[in-house]
Amino acid sequence: MWLDLDLEGELCSAEAVATEDARIAALTEVFRTDSADVRVGIGDDAAVLADGLVLSVDVCVEGTHFRRDFGPLEVLARRAAVGALSDLAAMGACPRALLSSLVVPGTLSDSELLALHRGLAAAATEVGAAVVGGNLAAGGELSLTTTVVGRSTRPLRRCGAKVGDAVYLSGPPGDAGLGLLALLAGRSSAFADRWLWPRAHIEEGLSLRGVASACVDVSDGLLRDLHHLCAASGVGAEIELAAIPRGGGFEAEARALAQDPDEVLLGSGEAYVLLFTAPASLTWATRIGTVVSEPGVFVRDRSGRRIARSPRGFDHFASGELTPVRG
Amino acid sequence: MWLDLDLEGELCSAEAVATEDARIAALTEVFRTDSADVRVGIGDDAAVLADGLVLSVDVCVEGTHFRRDFGPLEVLARRAAVGALSDLAAMGACPRALLSSLVVPGTLSDSELLALHRGLAAAATEVGAAVVGGNLAAGGELSLTTTVVGRSTRPLRRCGAKVGDAVYLSGPPGDAGLGLLALLAGRSSAFADRWLWPRAHIEEGLSLRGVASACVDVSDGLLRDLHHLCAASGVGAEIELAAIPRGGGFEAEARALAQDPDEVLLGSGEAYVLLFTAPASLTWATRIGTVVSEPGVFVRDRSGRRIARSPRGFDHFASGELTPVRG
Repeated sequence: MWLDLDLEGELCSAEAVATEDARIAALTEVFRTDSADVRVGIGDDAAVLADGLVLSVDVCVEGTHFRRDFGPLEVLARRAAVGALSDLAAMGACPRALLSSLVVPGTLSDSELLALHRGLAAAATEVGAAVVGGNLAAGGELSLTTTVVGRSTRPLRRCGAKVGDAVYLSGPPGDAGLGLLALLAGRSSAFADRWLWPRAHIEEGLSLRGVASACVDVSDGLLRDLHHLCAASGVGAEIELAAIPRGGGFEAEARALAQDPDEVLLGSGEAYVLLFTAPASLTWATRIGTVVSEPGVFVRDRSGRRIARSPRGFDHFASGELTPVRG
Repeated sequence: MWLDLDLEGELCSAEAVATEDARIAALTEVFRTDSADVRVGIGDDAAVLADGLVLSVDVCVEGTHFRRDFGPLEVLARRAAVGALSDLAAMGACPRALLSSLVVPGTLSDSELLALHRGLAAAATEVGAAVVGGNLAAGGELSLTTTVVGRSTRPLRRCGAKVGDAVYLSGPPGDAGLGLLALLAGRSSAFADRWLWPRAHIEEGLSLRGVASACVDVSDGLLRDLHHLCAASGVGAEIELAAIPRGGGFEAEARALAQDPDEVLLGSGEAYVLLFTAPASLTWATRIGTVVSEPGVFVRDRSGRRIARSPRGFDHFASGELTPVRG
């Protein structure tokens, strides 16, 4: 949610990140509440109410987040809902219900509309939840807003990472982004399916309750989301580039797309894997680094150099269309 | 919510209404669930989960639902949230939390963004709820999606109206629509404020629990919403045109705008008053008619004629812009 107050990717400059921080501070002030019903408000992946109700909302806008020629509408709609469900995963919440709000151009046919709804239904069914309602309105551009409702008695937060904790990933953070680059280039690639068919790591999130000290999902890119987690926790992190998981052929595919594989790995988002810290030693997730006291994110490259990295990511907004830029 | 599956106003023809019915039937099938957690699913003003959680979502799209020159962004944003909160009122629910999802053009300034958020915060504060989270994304057109979360142990429904019940309104159903016509015409009018400053009838809804046999809010127009209520309840309704409440000077203002006052009264939406049926005699609401066994909605005019009326309303969609048409 609103830590992603970023106009989706308008974040490749330090100024933009500063703007984001200022915006979040302004929002936190505007929406300040002393309600005892609000356990976690603005500033995490999802809100949590007093009774453990977990709430989040996410939107996919045609032209900003996807193009229709990337895949069938059903697949794109499923993907939009997975993006929202991923916020529940990051909170260690169990999904209960989804609400869908679609804005559709008048040119969309009934069968296309049905395809969108089928995709939403599929995403809900996969995680054992139901689409309980929604809204449909006419507009100039297609957008899919999904609200997700879950429950968690012990929600994961971004703010609990401790110095010495290990930093983990529940899956490869760059494969989906590489797939998006392939789709943008019109290049047939196995990675395109990683973007088209993400999975919300619900089970992983549930298993982290009482285990992880802090958790986010990688929606904005590994660097940015790790910066979010570190800032919320008041710590820093050092990660090993070589330790970051990636699909087979990642480097070759990135080079074929004229991209720097490391930057795609560090900067591309929408992977919806979980990035978390834990004092414990876990075997099912990939350890990529350690929480340190020095604020910031430090990446150790293959030659052993330790480089402080700003929260750069992909900018598919600045030009008003889906145009990835290098970090 | 989805009974308003209408592409906002694409409903002035019998064919469009038939299409709407077919769409709802298709949706109900796509989103069919046997989850014990879903007490009220698609087909009412809001969904209700097993623990009395009430959920709804609504969207306002620039060009479809409003124009920026109608009023300050703060006022327009407050209004968008009130439209969503009105669904909670119709369910007799107490508001707990709001989530906001904004799609904004890149040209929107930070201060304009802040104004939108201030308006949302105002709407939430007025009903004792908090904005607990949201999302912000870039797009070509401004749209404001608001998810509302409430609670109700005894939710009001659309489906309980009984023959012989009285039909009531909690306020004037046409004043806001007349205000919209004035705004569209660029005419200064006291009614414009009725459109700009609606109020969700939360207290009224809460007081109807255990009293009303069926309830909806007038979001799509009196005729359409009464049709919805009657269809859900398997009954019909007969209402008196002269009994329908309206603001002082309504007829004169309508004529000045070259509109038929009766059609504005019957067909314009976004009033967010409650339309309900009850066996009891209530003094605080206005009785406008009676529930009958014959399916349909029948309007008795000033000359005593009883006319069957189709669920016609305003069409601010067909042309792709805000263009009201007569019912």
